[in-house]
Amino acid sequence: MSKKELQRQERRSWGRIETNINELVSGVKENKFSSIARAISMVEDEDPLLRKDILRKIGAPTKKAHVVGITGPPGIGKSTLIGNLSSGMMTRGIRNAVLAIDASSPFTGGSLLGNRIRMQDKLRDSHVFMRSLANRGEKGGLSRSAIGAVRILEAAGNQEIIIETVGAGQADLDIMNLADTIVLVLAPGLGDEIQAIKAGIMEISHIFVINKMDREGAYFAMKDIEDIVSMDDHSDWKRPVVGTTSKDNESYNSLIEAILSHRKYLEMNNSLSVKRKFMEMETALEDEINENITSKLKKKLIEVQTSGNKLSNDKSDEDPFSVAEELLKNFLEYSVE
Amino acid sequence: MSKKELQRQERRSWGRIETNINELVSGVKENKFSSIARAISMVEDEDPLLRKDILRKIGAPTKKAHVVGITGPPGIGKSTLIGNLSSGMMTRGIRNAVLAIDASSPFTGGSLLGNRIRMQDKLRDSHVFMRSLANRGEKGGLSRSAIGAVRILEAAGNQEIIIETVGAGQADLDIMNLADTIVLVLAPGLGDEIQAIKAGIMEISHIFVINKMDREGAYFAMKDIEDIVSMDDHSDWKRPVVGTTSKDNESYNSLIEAILSHRKYLEMNNSLSVKRKFMEMETALEDEINENITSKLKKKLIEVQTSGNKLSNDKSDEDPFSVAEELLKNFLEYSVE
Repeated sequence: MSKKELQRQERRSWGRIETNINELVSGVKENKFSSIARAISMVEDEDPLLRKDILRKIGAPTKKAHVVGITGPPGIGKSTLIGNLSSGMMTRGIRNAVLAIDASSPFTGGSLLGNRIRMQDKLRDSHVFMRSLANRGEKGGLSRSAIGAVRILEAAGNQEIIIETVGAGQADLDIMNLADTIVLVLAPGLGDEIQAIKAGIMEISHIFVINKMDREGAYFAMKDIEDIVSMDDHSDWKRPVVGTTSKDNESYNSLIEAILSHRKYLEMNNSLSVKRKFMEMETALEDEINENITSKLKKKLIEVQTSGNKLSNDKSDEDPFSVAEELLKNFLEYSVE
Repeated sequence: MSKKELQRQERRSWGRIETNINELVSGVKENKFSSIARAISMVEDEDPLLRKDILRKIGAPTKKAHVVGITGPPGIGKSTLIGNLSSGMMTRGIRNAVLAIDASSPFTGGSLLGNRIRMQDKLRDSHVFMRSLANRGEKGGLSRSAIGAVRILEAAGNQEIIIETVGAGQADLDIMNLADTIVLVLAPGLGDEIQAIKAGIMEISHIFVINKMDREGAYFAMKDIEDIVSMDDHSDWKRPVVGTTSKDNESYNSLIEAILSHRKYLEMNNSLSVKRKFMEMETALEDEINENITSKLKKKLIEVQTSGNKLSNDKSDEDPFSVAEELLKNFLEYSVE
């Protein structure tokens, strides 16, 4: 095949991808589950150009979604709670979607699966879109995927987007920053663990849930949290403590009320999704720098290493900072300070 | 105070910091534990200039250290094993230090503490330097701290640096990349869990340990792993499976032998610390870009947002990618492609 023909073919296949992405984005905006799933997969992949292309075509939402982050220790019943919360919202006509974040390690992944599958079944019955996002190895990759996925779910017209994290690491905390409303789920009998939890997570939570209210000591646990919370409250938002139990479907209504009233509070203060928009900008900026500078210079670093073999050679223990400074200086050579 | 006086004072205090860092680095090279601890704390802090200053002054090591990463599921007895491994090395005259990585979440942090404290006591008795590194919130911050800490421990003249991770997340895996030798610790009766572990971690490990060999089924577990490993072996290094138990101190000798023989294997192939040197370069490059470009542009982003109030304003749902592109374009305006 001649060079011209190859170029023509390349352009054609680009054209095809172009059409496909436009179709995909239309599908997303019509709330087609298959399109949403595919769009999220594409955003999850590590091709930054593709991610940018899709998210750009999705554009600004016609209506802002409210992002609710649900976190808490493993085994506290978050999946079951989310299943009931989400289907309860649907019953009230509030369209919502669920993102389950899986930042677990290779050693602790398995145990959560069962509950997630039961949740998935429940959500399917209620026609709720649900998707898991897993670690793909890249630093910060999970929170980048989550940002993209939320934008897609917002474009699909969801009013509420519920994000579940297993609370298993730094990635989870980064993702919690996406949420307009953070719900911390606890259970009776945690005792000492609450002391450990207090540092950090308590402060950033907007709503507290005591799950498994049918258990002994539930009301004491609620009282404990209420005491801690009332001492810490420094904003206009009085943080509620809500009790839930899978034995009583009605109990989720108070949680829905609390979530909707925090949404209203944010809207009144013009702060719905402000933090998220800023994270989108920061991530886009990081991507842009990575694509145009960092990845190019890393390639250069590998070239330097493999050609001159300077790094593997015993005596040339070069100062990494000088190498880095030189690489960047050369890159910016003609730029103005 | 006049401007001149202020400047003079500033210079003086800089001079003082300068002297202190030089003293600190001398202390590190004399293997003073207090200096090592302080240097690691400074590298752990988020001031990139200070980190750069210290690591640069530490310079190239006179003798390369061998970095051993020890990983495995929580509760498998890693801390006890490391205590015995490290003191066993000391008995043989092999100077070593221990870094314990704590990438745990706010929800799961507490349970490990007891074993770590027992390990710390054991190590103190053997005059081994031991330090924990914890998550400080920044993306990739933990692996950055670990890189710096290893460099400091190497400068202090340690021949072996043992890194323990709880295997609790992405950060742990990043840090495992620092290790010349990865030791995967398992125990009898894991059964199904080994299936889950197989993905990823098994492939990158160089030595396998069945700990708690006094337990029932220990020899079957060893045989299982030996079978899996022998099928997967594609390099000249035949990956050994070693049994250990805290009931028999002698059992750690075979682990020490395996570690030393992998070190010898790497040295013969000129590959000791090659991967680590490359990570140091990459990290230095990322720091350099972050300091000179990313952090400046993020500040600019905040300025744009707060001044024009463009992002919090309802109708201006700007495309984050266009904002990012423009910011970077302006920055690089005069640079050459």
